Amino acid sequence: MLEQIMKNVNEVKPLVHHITNYVTVNDCANVVLASGGSPIMADDATEVEEITNICNSLVINIGTLNERTVHSMIVAGKKANQLGHPVILDPVGAGASHLRTKTLFRLLEEVRFAVVRGNVSEIKTIATGHGRTKGVDAVAADEVTEESLDEMMHFAKELSRKIDAVIAITGKIDIVADEKQAFAIHNGHPTMSNITGTGCMLTSVIGTFCGANPSEILESTVVAVAAMGLCGEQAHERTVRTDGGTSSFRMHLIDAISKLNQVELGEGIKLETR
Amino acid sequence: MLEQIMKNVNEVKPLVHHITNYVTVNDCANVVLASGGSPIMADDATEVEEITNICNSLVINIGTLNERTVHSMIVAGKKANQLGHPVILDPVGAGASHLRTKTLFRLLEEVRFAVVRGNVSEIKTIATGHGRTKGVDAVAADEVTEESLDEMMHFAKELSRKIDAVIAITGKIDIVADEKQAFAIHNGHPTMSNITGTGCMLTSVIGTFCGANPSEILESTVVAVAAMGLCGEQAHERTVRTDGGTSSFRMHLIDAISKLNQVELGEGIKLETR
Amino acid sequence: MLEQIMKNVNEVKPLVHHITNYVTVNDCANVVLASGGSPIMADDATEVEEITNICNSLVINIGTLNERTVHSMIVAGKKANQLGHPVILDPVGAGASHLRTKTLFRLLEEVRFAVVRGNVSEIKTIATGHGRTKGVDAVAADEVTEESLDEMMHFAKELSRKIDAVIAITGKIDIVADEKQAFAIHNGHPTMSNITGTGCMLTSVIGTFCGANPSEILESTVVAVAAMGLCGEQAHERTVRTDGGTSSFRMHLIDAISKLNQVELGEGIKLETR
Repeated sequence: MLEQIMKNVNEVKPLVHHITNYVTVNDCANVVLASGGSPIMADDATEVEEITNICNSLVINIGTLNERTVHSMIVAGKKANQLGHPVILDPVGAGASHLRTKTLFRLLEEVRFAVVRGNVSEIKTIATGHGRTKGVDAVAADEVTEESLDEMMHFAKELSRKIDAVIAITGKIDIVADEKQAFAIHNGHPTMSNITGTGCMLTSVIGTFCGANPSEILESTVVAVAAMGLCGEQAHERTVRTDGGTSSFRMHLIDAISKLNQVELGEGIKLETR
Repeated sequence: MLEQIMKNVNEVKPLVHHITNYVTVNDCANVVLASGGSPIMADDATEVEEITNICNSLVINIGTLNERTVHSMIVAGKKANQLGHPVILDPVGAGASHLRTKTLFRLLEEVRFAVVRGNVSEIKTIATGHGRTKGVDAVAADEVTEESLDEMMHFAKELSRKIDAVIAITGKIDIVADEKQAFAIHNGHPTMSNITGTGCMLTSVIGTFCGANPSEILESTVVAVAAMGLCGEQAHERTVRTDGGTSSFRMHLIDAISKLNQVELGEGIKLETR
Repeated sequence: MLEQIMKNVNEVKPLVHHITNYVTVNDCANVVLASGGSPIMADDATEVEEITNICNSLVINIGTLNERTVHSMIVAGKKANQLGHPVILDPVGAGASHLRTKTLFRLLEEVRFAVVRGNVSEIKTIATGHGRTKGVDAVAADEVTEESLDEMMHFAKELSRKIDAVIAITGKIDIVADEKQAFAIHNGHPTMSNITGTGCMLTSVIGTFCGANPSEILESTVVAVAAMGLCGEQAHERTVRTDGGTSSFRMHLIDAISKLNQVELGEGIKLETR
């Protein structure tokens, strides 16, 4: 599975259309390139349909949403749906404001998403309709732990059935689920939350992998989440070895993604299904 | 003082709302995380009040202002004032255009700022109502020198009284003042002006420190300015040692902030009051 | 020639006004500083004339264009023309959507450009009125090769005459031409296309060099293109030596630009004219 997914990325070199926030947009573009795709950022409503048309997938990230770009997200999303392109949603900060929560539900109503990836507080907002988020970070009390893992894997499957999308909940332990099957991924490192954009970057990697593997959405998402986690581990090691700080970590993280090979990933992946 | 300020940052982990420019926004987000806070960037007028409500402080940076975001700045600023949150202003490029100068005065009229941080040309624009700036950089003739230091510290105190905000003037020598007391800070390195965003990042660190210490605005600003300067010195040393250039310097600067401890800062701070 | 151009950059320290995209804007600002200029990003229509007035050159980059910023580009471009400032165009993604192609032609009609720099697919769109681009990257079939070099150098001269601007086509082999003379530049490294923003950054360096040398546009563009290519080679070497990936490469690229000296450039430049 892993082998085929990465082979397809290298062969297709998917073009990934992004309507995303201006905080982490450069990291997202670089991580798409590092993971084997090609990014294009375009958010004007008059061009998003054409841009999506030449792409393989669409990433919608509401990190710095405004009225103009929300409209473009819906226009692009509908077009991508018509074309059968995977659309990935990153509901950044959902639950932190009515605008974000309302936009999330409007997007879920008007666009069919292949994958929704967020932290646990953002994903819970989808299920409950309201949220408690510490801004763009998860609330500590929400974090997935070994104790809550069973329950959260069940929750992810239920939510996947409800909104008909693969659900990726990322944090200390990551969960990826469709309605039938849930995976827990034990890769990653706490330092990943000390830089901005780890979540956004992962969503973009999911967009890249799904763009090249549109009929293997669940598997592609699992591989992307595991790859990001493993690269986080490698980046942490390298940061410690070079006596670096958080900015070094960011560089080593993108470096690791650009150098990742499937043998390494196959050996490093810590995956379980329940 | 120093000890307590940094302890509070680590305990509160302040959430810092930013309405800022798209040039240095990623650096600002990363430096807030590196200095112990959590950033959230949100600029749509319909959500800024709610976002500010869950935050500890608000940073307003006019680096790439436009009509839409200026409106959001005022809405958010008024709300933060109601909540008693410290609001920090970075008047990027004030004096370079009527729009910037006019916006600066409109903000000063409608919002009560805890701190205003800028280069000497930007800060002089506040005092005189018009500016001479070399774009977003200070005019050489304006630079604070040992000769003009006394006069400028007096100027900063006067301006602080006039606009009722702590004034931070940064450059070769940094000045931080309220109406009663002025500090000169002799940390920093010239390389800091060879990358974009050093000023914006400092404003964000001030936002982080003040967010966790809302009743110690003057002291928090002094500590933030000194910390940034010291980290600039450390980053320069490391850049030289690794034979790096300006982009290495930027990484080492954020790295240094993420690794700063109060003992190091206490020993490295070069502070005088007059 | 080379010596004088770089001497002027260091003496003038040109202020470069940018109306550019939010994906690579931070890289562009940093590369302007690294190459000896000072950047200012300002895109509100009410201030762009004033900002351009205090600058030495203007860079227009349509990477994430929208209605609001296209209007600002035209206002700023007309003003820069009145002032005799060099205006540089980067037609990112021209050919990928009607909006981009239409905007390109509108800009060419309303503003007189000193230089237009793009990849081969973008530049061909200018000549043909329609394009085939793989998003923001060149189509492989369009790439300049040793076989097509003669033909493409002729094409560049013809296009330069037609639109009265220096043409810079960058890719594996770079071409810079005015209507009389074309240069091929054989510097650079394939890794440059594995990060976002190499093209945008080069356009900003051209803006810096032309801003300090407004009467030597062709030569300044040649030097900028060669400098960027040589720095790409140096960055690649360093990335390999330090076992880095694409994010390291980006850092080393900007580092190299900040450390470039004319002796090194004089020795490393691989230039031919036909």
